[in-house]
Amino acid sequence: MRKKAKRGFASDNNAGIHPDVLKAIKDANVGHVIGYGEDVYTEEAINIIKEHFGQNIDVHFVFNGTGANVLGMKAVTESYNSIICAETAHINVDECGAPEKFTGCKLLPVPTVNGKITVEKIKYHMHGFDFEHHSQPGVISITQSTELGTVYTINEIAEITQFAHENNMLVHMDGARLCNAVVSLNTNFKEITNDTGIDILSFGLTKNGGINAEAVIFFDKELSKNFKYYRKQGMQLASKMRFMAVQFTALLRNDLWLKNARHANRMAQILVEKVVKNPQVTITQKVEANGVFAIISKETISRLQKEFFFYVWDEDKSEVRWMTSFDTTEEDIIKFVKELRYIIK
Amino acid sequence: MRKKAKRGFASDNNAGIHPDVLKAIKDANVGHVIGYGEDVYTEEAINIIKEHFGQNIDVHFVFNGTGANVLGMKAVTESYNSIICAETAHINVDECGAPEKFTGCKLLPVPTVNGKITVEKIKYHMHGFDFEHHSQPGVISITQSTELGTVYTINEIAEITQFAHENNMLVHMDGARLCNAVVSLNTNFKEITNDTGIDILSFGLTKNGGINAEAVIFFDKELSKNFKYYRKQGMQLASKMRFMAVQFTALLRNDLWLKNARHANRMAQILVEKVVKNPQVTITQKVEANGVFAIISKETISRLQKEFFFYVWDEDKSEVRWMTSFDTTEEDIIKFVKELRYIIK
Amino acid sequence: MRKKAKRGFASDNNAGIHPDVLKAIKDANVGHVIGYGEDVYTEEAINIIKEHFGQNIDVHFVFNGTGANVLGMKAVTESYNSIICAETAHINVDECGAPEKFTGCKLLPVPTVNGKITVEKIKYHMHGFDFEHHSQPGVISITQSTELGTVYTINEIAEITQFAHENNMLVHMDGARLCNAVVSLNTNFKEITNDTGIDILSFGLTKNGGINAEAVIFFDKELSKNFKYYRKQGMQLASKMRFMAVQFTALLRNDLWLKNARHANRMAQILVEKVVKNPQVTITQKVEANGVFAIISKETISRLQKEFFFYVWDEDKSEVRWMTSFDTTEEDIIKFVKELRYIIK
Amino acid sequence: MRKKAKRGFASDNNAGIHPDVLKAIKDANVGHVIGYGEDVYTEEAINIIKEHFGQNIDVHFVFNGTGANVLGMKAVTESYNSIICAETAHINVDECGAPEKFTGCKLLPVPTVNGKITVEKIKYHMHGFDFEHHSQPGVISITQSTELGTVYTINEIAEITQFAHENNMLVHMDGARLCNAVVSLNTNFKEITNDTGIDILSFGLTKNGGINAEAVIFFDKELSKNFKYYRKQGMQLASKMRFMAVQFTALLRNDLWLKNARHANRMAQILVEKVVKNPQVTITQKVEANGVFAIISKETISRLQKEFFFYVWDEDKSEVRWMTSFDTTEEDIIKFVKELRYIIK
Repeated sequence: MRKKAKRGFASDNNAGIHPDVLKAIKDANVGHVIGYGEDVYTEEAINIIKEHFGQNIDVHFVFNGTGANVLGMKAVTESYNSIICAETAHINVDECGAPEKFTGCKLLPVPTVNGKITVEKIKYHMHGFDFEHHSQPGVISITQSTELGTVYTINEIAEITQFAHENNMLVHMDGARLCNAVVSLNTNFKEITNDTGIDILSFGLTKNGGINAEAVIFFDKELSKNFKYYRKQGMQLASKMRFMAVQFTALLRNDLWLKNARHANRMAQILVEKVVKNPQVTITQKVEANGVFAIISKETISRLQKEFFFYVWDEDKSEVRWMTSFDTTEEDIIKFVKELRYIIK
Repeated sequence: MRKKAKRGFASDNNAGIHPDVLKAIKDANVGHVIGYGEDVYTEEAINIIKEHFGQNIDVHFVFNGTGANVLGMKAVTESYNSIICAETAHINVDECGAPEKFTGCKLLPVPTVNGKITVEKIKYHMHGFDFEHHSQPGVISITQSTELGTVYTINEIAEITQFAHENNMLVHMDGARLCNAVVSLNTNFKEITNDTGIDILSFGLTKNGGINAEAVIFFDKELSKNFKYYRKQGMQLASKMRFMAVQFTALLRNDLWLKNARHANRMAQILVEKVVKNPQVTITQKVEANGVFAIISKETISRLQKEFFFYVWDEDKSEVRWMTSFDTTEEDIIKFVKELRYIIK
Repeated sequence: MRKKAKRGFASDNNAGIHPDVLKAIKDANVGHVIGYGEDVYTEEAINIIKEHFGQNIDVHFVFNGTGANVLGMKAVTESYNSIICAETAHINVDECGAPEKFTGCKLLPVPTVNGKITVEKIKYHMHGFDFEHHSQPGVISITQSTELGTVYTINEIAEITQFAHENNMLVHMDGARLCNAVVSLNTNFKEITNDTGIDILSFGLTKNGGINAEAVIFFDKELSKNFKYYRKQGMQLASKMRFMAVQFTALLRNDLWLKNARHANRMAQILVEKVVKNPQVTITQKVEANGVFAIISKETISRLQKEFFFYVWDEDKSEVRWMTSFDTTEEDIIKFVKELRYIIK
Repeated sequence: MRKKAKRGFASDNNAGIHPDVLKAIKDANVGHVIGYGEDVYTEEAINIIKEHFGQNIDVHFVFNGTGANVLGMKAVTESYNSIICAETAHINVDECGAPEKFTGCKLLPVPTVNGKITVEKIKYHMHGFDFEHHSQPGVISITQSTELGTVYTINEIAEITQFAHENNMLVHMDGARLCNAVVSLNTNFKEITNDTGIDILSFGLTKNGGINAEAVIFFDKELSKNFKYYRKQGMQLASKMRFMAVQFTALLRNDLWLKNARHANRMAQILVEKVVKNPQVTITQKVEANGVFAIISKETISRLQKEFFFYVWDEDKSEVRWMTSFDTTEEDIIKFVKELRYIIK
């Protein structure tokens, strides 16, 4: 059942820990500190995050991306609200209903061809306000970079946040791969979130070289004044918090996150450039971050998976997903493409 | 707000990581493996756990003790059930209502003087069966070793499990400090759980030298056949699972857990022997594991806390809790007791 | 704010109580009976329901349609399941997220042009089985007659139930207007539910002349063995149950339900025949039960609503809904159509 | 299974409908009105309630007492709150965990000998404020008249509300038998609720002669600004609301409620005076409302129940509960006492 996977392109979470992160954990393993975040390591990590995202924010560490998404939205919703998101959003298809279970809210999916939603499409759900029979739209959630490897431009985000705020809604960003988007847009963390009107951010560095480095960031502290209770009740409060905190510090200090994300994105570019040469491979999405989506024949999939583990994204279309990560090497790509070519021929 | 704590006796989760655990994490940081537990490290860890607890069990790793407790009970209850536990149980007083929120069940507290509950006291809640107005008793939860540093004997546990099973209920054990109980009773993991009729175990090694090493163990696989969905929906499924798994392997292989727990228990004995000599200190609980509970004057508490962080257990009684851990040294104790004596005099 | 509405076509729940139902309540208002359903009136009502739906069923009365839908699905789902339904389903758009809140399940909407869903469209959601990241499809819910005044044929239902059962799912029917469908198909209750493979039915007679006559019917008693607890925990157990029970008895005895539903359906036919003559009115759905859906100009809507209260179904399309009921008179229709014609001209 | 009960003393909900209530329903059964409360009957009922409880209140009708209690508390709590109540409270022992399920809150029971809780006993739970591991005390719930037939004095209530407000908590009153308490204290509705600092009231007239006449009353409209969504999502919004509303109007107009409650209370006094003469009957609670609690031998219980249905309150103590209602007659009492005497002799 459980297989020893080769290096491959299954997911950026199949990679391990960046050595600097491991070193930071080791360095923090000294003496005793108070548990649950009342320690200097956590304080330091929060300060570094503030340097990147803005001083007037509220930061809380949690165990994983699902926890960050669900608790971030719980903090700003009532159970009678609805949450609008892309049909392909992680919160909609990959969290086993955790958002509904913990928030009580209804999720309203918006169809999308490239993982991005637009105001035009969101408007479909803009009705029933003040009508008690109808779940009240409360949050729009977008993913940056998206589950399809694309990236919202700053203007696209701003258009959504403006629309949301005009309609008395908030905007949540699932930033499990935010670093890859920042690289893609050649911008910085603050500009793409705080300055663009995002209200709540799930900020993930797990896929950037951490073990379990996930945070919920509120850009308006009023929104998170009771968050600590939701985190605890949501089973997401770590006792030995310092070892989560130092992962953030290690990755955000000296722009290690940037180096890692740049590398992953570049590897995706190299990968797509190599595979696209093959006419039997149809690339289905713009490669703007660290994911490549392609249609190949079912037989090719089956044979290629014998050597490299990866996910079929859409069985009907015979579409697959290949993710690069901070530790992907050009050699990995060469081997993979070679095998792909061999199979196709 | 956040303080740099000195080495002290606040909690066994104020300690760090055992060096062997850190080494295991480093050793596992090689190449890519499939996420979410489909990897050889997880497989190995589960096998070692089976060696200790019995082959015919089902094991799932989660992030923390609250997650283990809540999800373990969710798997075996319906929302109309009630869960009977000591009034002092972690699930009752230290999880911010997570059990109620996620399971929908009612918690029925049983008064206790030493953290242990008895069949005699449980019987108080044995009524209203089949009566739809009444939450149906479904689970008895006990903590081993208890929140008060005491330990259930095997007979005491067996009496509870027999009673539970005769009344169509299951027994959950919160084993956040199970290792300390095993040492205290000079027994082994299997005898104290599987053989004694426990149905679901929250097995924690975080306090034994891990970072976040917690597992839910089901001794009847029928009970856990849908557990994987609850773990995911409960936001407790780790992507980079291998780094949790190896913590178990490191601690359970070569009896490192035993060494660690023995040490912690011995330190508690030394601590209590030293402090008890002082007539102004009243020990309130038998020291059977790694916790010492004592009444000292409020002024002493206040002055001692300036040097050593620890928790007041019962404000009204002026009762405090001192926990020892795998890394407590005799020197730590000597310094602490010296300061205590100095203050009292 | 609150207006005295004229007789009109807003909803079949704007009608009152059938006189025979009121008489039955009065006749049951004698002496004392045990509360919560342990009375002869409830027994009698259940027996009459069994005569109509089959002997081997389990029947429970609840307060309203939302309660029937939500509790019926709660009884047969786990929180990690998903529920597939028409995008237009009452459970999806008119219950303020009650299904998500109480069951914890995700709702998966299926697009539909006439309120009916098909196996072909349901298949879109048939993936992710056994994959813990994905809510597990557990229930298909259909509405009969639909929210759009159309009616599933027996074959259409059978196709869905067969598909569901082959895929280890159950089928729930929202039968708030089941009587109108039975009349439309010239069939009987049993044939359209029990015999066609429906597993759980929300059976409503409120819109047929009751006050609050709603029941959950399980066609396999195994499914409902714990239902009584969900009903109580779901706040849907009536103390003076006899007065709900006799509403069923009054309507189901001597085929009063049939007379009422036939009348309502006939009124809808008369209404549609009259309005369709007007070229400015576009009928958008087949009139198979007691609802008429039509597109008229926004100005016409606005002026007509000054005289008759009714709901705009789709603001963008300028589509309205007119419902007939057991007490609609031909005179009501004549007045309404006259006003409509007057406005249009 | 289901028995035809004789007139007796099982519960005040075993009684039927007061004829004036039935007449009011009949009188309202004219023409069409908008559903869900947007009708003149509902408006009138709310106005009459305001005359009794104060103008500046917010009133919402629900189906039953459990619904009123749970939704009233949901409106003012977050899931991390706790609710403090008597161990004997209906919300704690007779609602199958509905409060926990729907609010997510923890219930903190307070021991009581007479059904009443005091500030002194409440203080036991006053700790852990601002500590995220601990459910935050948010609401104190009291029952008036209590489940044990006793009545809080106005001073006793005021002491609790003052304490609650000083500690940033709110007070909910379960007033399923509020009328009986008003009679007992010779006061009025407003004085005993609004003027005494109650924040949320579950106001029940079902036991006073209604069918399902229950309301949630908020004395500060700020608390209920989103209540309509909770009522709908909580499955407690009636479509044909007018028929619930007129029950309130009928009972509150011309002081019919007062006549009914006075009668029930007087019947309880007569009952207790008669049974107390018998030395084998020990009255266990002051008879201040319409309930009589007594210890009689198990054999007497068993024989008496063959003739009259009533509930055993405490099996261990052999304590029973006898309730009188608006339709209890002196003849009922005479027959009952005669049988009791006959059995005992």
